Amino acid sequence: MSSAHASTNHSSALEKVCIIGSGNWGSAVAKIVGGNVTHHEGFDQKVNMWVFEEQFEGQPLTQIINARHENVKYLPGIRLPSNVHAEPDLARAARDASLLIFVLPHQFIAGACRTLKEHRTIRPGAKAISLVKGLAADETSSGSGPCLVSSLITKSLNGIDVSVLSGANIANEIAEEKFSETTIGYRNRRNGELFYQLFNTPYFQVNIVNDPCGVELCGALKNIVAIGAGMVDGLGLGENTKAAIIRIGLMEMMKFAKQFDSTVRDDTFFESCGIADVITTCAGGRNRRVGEAFVRTGKSFEELEREMLNGQKLQGTSTCQDVCDYLSQRNRGPEFPLFMTIHDICFRGLAPENITKFNRRQTNSKI
Amino acid sequence: MSSAHASTNHSSALEKVCIIGSGNWGSAVAKIVGGNVTHHEGFDQKVNMWVFEEQFEGQPLTQIINARHENVKYLPGIRLPSNVHAEPDLARAARDASLLIFVLPHQFIAGACRTLKEHRTIRPGAKAISLVKGLAADETSSGSGPCLVSSLITKSLNGIDVSVLSGANIANEIAEEKFSETTIGYRNRRNGELFYQLFNTPYFQVNIVNDPCGVELCGALKNIVAIGAGMVDGLGLGENTKAAIIRIGLMEMMKFAKQFDSTVRDDTFFESCGIADVITTCAGGRNRRVGEAFVRTGKSFEELEREMLNGQKLQGTSTCQDVCDYLSQRNRGPEFPLFMTIHDICFRGLAPENITKFNRRQTNSKI
Repeated sequence: MSSAHASTNHSSALEKVCIIGSGNWGSAVAKIVGGNVTHHEGFDQKVNMWVFEEQFEGQPLTQIINARHENVKYLPGIRLPSNVHAEPDLARAARDASLLIFVLPHQFIAGACRTLKEHRTIRPGAKAISLVKGLAADETSSGSGPCLVSSLITKSLNGIDVSVLSGANIANEIAEEKFSETTIGYRNRRNGELFYQLFNTPYFQVNIVNDPCGVELCGALKNIVAIGAGMVDGLGLGENTKAAIIRIGLMEMMKFAKQFDSTVRDDTFFESCGIADVITTCAGGRNRRVGEAFVRTGKSFEELEREMLNGQKLQGTSTCQDVCDYLSQRNRGPEFPLFMTIHDICFRGLAPENITKFNRRQTNSKI
Repeated sequence: MSSAHASTNHSSALEKVCIIGSGNWGSAVAKIVGGNVTHHEGFDQKVNMWVFEEQFEGQPLTQIINARHENVKYLPGIRLPSNVHAEPDLARAARDASLLIFVLPHQFIAGACRTLKEHRTIRPGAKAISLVKGLAADETSSGSGPCLVSSLITKSLNGIDVSVLSGANIANEIAEEKFSETTIGYRNRRNGELFYQLFNTPYFQVNIVNDPCGVELCGALKNIVAIGAGMVDGLGLGENTKAAIIRIGLMEMMKFAKQFDSTVRDDTFFESCGIADVITTCAGGRNRRVGEAFVRTGKSFEELEREMLNGQKLQGTSTCQDVCDYLSQRNRGPEFPLFMTIHDICFRGLAPENITKFNRRQTNSKI
C-alpha cells in the first residue's frame, strides 16, 4: 500500500477523532482530547469538533473558535489547543472519523446519528463514546419506556460499539485543570483502553470499568436523587437527612440499574460515576437548586425552569417520570419508595414533607 | 420465683439500660432510648444516665437534669423523657444494668470500664453497645498500634458482647427529630435486634448489619477523609476535586478496614455509617473545618485546636497518625496514597497542594 493511498484509506492506522458537540462540557473535553492526541502515538493530530453554528457578536461561532482557539460563548477564558478545528457541517466534521465523541443534549442524538448515517462519512469499524446525560425515548417501540443513549447510538449506526464516560465532572473546573476523576464504561476492553488514552490526564483521572450500562445509568438516575436532595434543603431538614436521602437514593439507583440490566455491577457505584457524581450533584447542580426552589416557592417546575434555567431543561424531573412510569408499568414501584415519593411530590401534588415519610425499610435489601 | 424476689434478681426478664455518658450525643440518645423503653415490652422503664458531675450556674448538673428534664449544658432546649435519671456515680448508675450504652470520649472508656469491673454492679450476661468515635490505644500490648474501642470494652469487662452504633448522626438534628438513619453492627443477631428496638424510631431509622468491626472503623476513619476534604476546601479546588477525595478516601477506608479485620464487608460502606456519614462529615464537621483552616492560615493543628475547638481534641489527625503508623510498620503505606499524603501534610511539612498529586491509580484495586 503506497503512503499516498494510506493517507486517505479508511484502514489507516491513525485514529481520527470527531467531537460531536461544543457546549460547555464538549469544549472542556476538546481541550483534553486535543492535547492527548498530540501526546500519544496512533492518533491523527487534527481533532474536528462539530459546532451547531450560531452568531456571536455578529460573527459565526466556528470562525471565532478557529481564529481565537476559544469557545467564547460556552467556555470563555479557556484556551483550546490549536489542533482542535470547529466545523459547522456535521458530515464534514465526521469525515473519516474512527472515534466519535458524543457530547450533545440527548434530544439531538437521534438527528445527529441520522446525518452521520445518511452521509456515510465515518469509517467502517469506528467506535463511539457517549458523554450524554439522561435517558432517551425508545422511538422504535413506543410505550416501552426509557432507553439508554448509548443503545440509541448503537441502533442508529449499524451496531457501532459505544463506550460511556460519566463522573463528578463540572466542566469549568476541569477546564481550569482542577483535579478530578471520571469513569469510562466499556463493552470491549481494547476500546476502553483507547478512550482511556484519549481522556486521561494528570488532572482528569480516568478509571475504566467493564460496565457501560451501570456507568450510563448512574449519570441519568443521579438527577432524581438531586431533586430529592434539593427538597430536603428546601425543607431545612439538615445534613443528616440530606445524607440519608442521598444514601437511600444511591441504593435505589443501584437496584433500578440492576433490574434494568442484570449485568450492572455493584462496585461501579463506588466509582466516580457513582458516589462521587451523586455527591457533587447533590451539593450544587441545577436539579438540586430547582428542587429546593420548588419547595420554598410552591411554583411549578415549568415556571422554575423558565425562571432559573435560561432555556435549559431540567433532567431530573423528566428522568423521574420516565423511570417511575417504567416501574409502575411493571408493578415495581413499591420497591422504590424514594423514587416514587419524589415522583408523587413532583407530579401528583404530594406534600414535600413526605420526602422522609416513605417506608424506607423496603430499600434495605439492596442486592 | 416470687415477684418480690424477681424485682431484684439479676436474671429478671426486664432489660435495664444504663447510658454511660451525657454529652451532646449521649443526651440525644437518652431522649430516644428513654422513649423507646416505654414503647416496647421487656424493658425496665427507668433509664439511668451517668453524668460526669459538674457545676452549672452554681448547681450540680445532675440535679438540674433531674429537676428540669433537660441537659442545659450539652443539649439545651430539648426535653428529655422523665424516666431518664441522671446519676453522678457510675457504679450506682450501672447497678443491675443489662444493657450498657457507651457514649463517652474514647479516652475515658478504660477508666469507666475499670470502675464497672471493680464494683461488679452490672448483671452477668449484660450486653454493651459502643457509640464512641475514634480508635483506642491498645494499652495491653504497647507498640502494636490502634485498637477498637469495642475490643477495649470487651477485654475490660470479661468478654462482654459489644455491638456498635455509627451513622450520619449530628446530635442536635436528631434531638430535633429531623429524619436520619444509623447503622448498628452486631456480633450476635439477637443482641443486634435488642438494640434495634432500643434505638429505632420513625425519625431515627436503624439498619442492623453483622459487621461490627466495619461499622466501628467507618466512624473512626472518616475523620481522616474529612481532614483531606477540608484541605481541598482550603485550597479552593472545587466540587469535583472534593468528591474525588471523598471517593478515594472511602476506598482507602474500605481497604484499611479489610486489612485490619478480614471479616469486614464491602456493603457496610453503603450503609449510613459509610457513605452517608462521610458525606455529612466532609460537608460540615470540625475535622473538615480545621483541615480548611490549616491550609488557609498556615497555623499548626495544635494552635487551631486551641482557637477553634474550645478544648475538644481533633480526632482526624490523631486517627491519621495511628493508622499511618500502623501501615508504615507493616510497609503498607504505598497502598494508601491518600491517607499517607494527608499524614505527610499534617505531620511532615508536605505542601497541602500535594493532596491531589499522589499516584491515585494505586487505590483503584479496592478489593
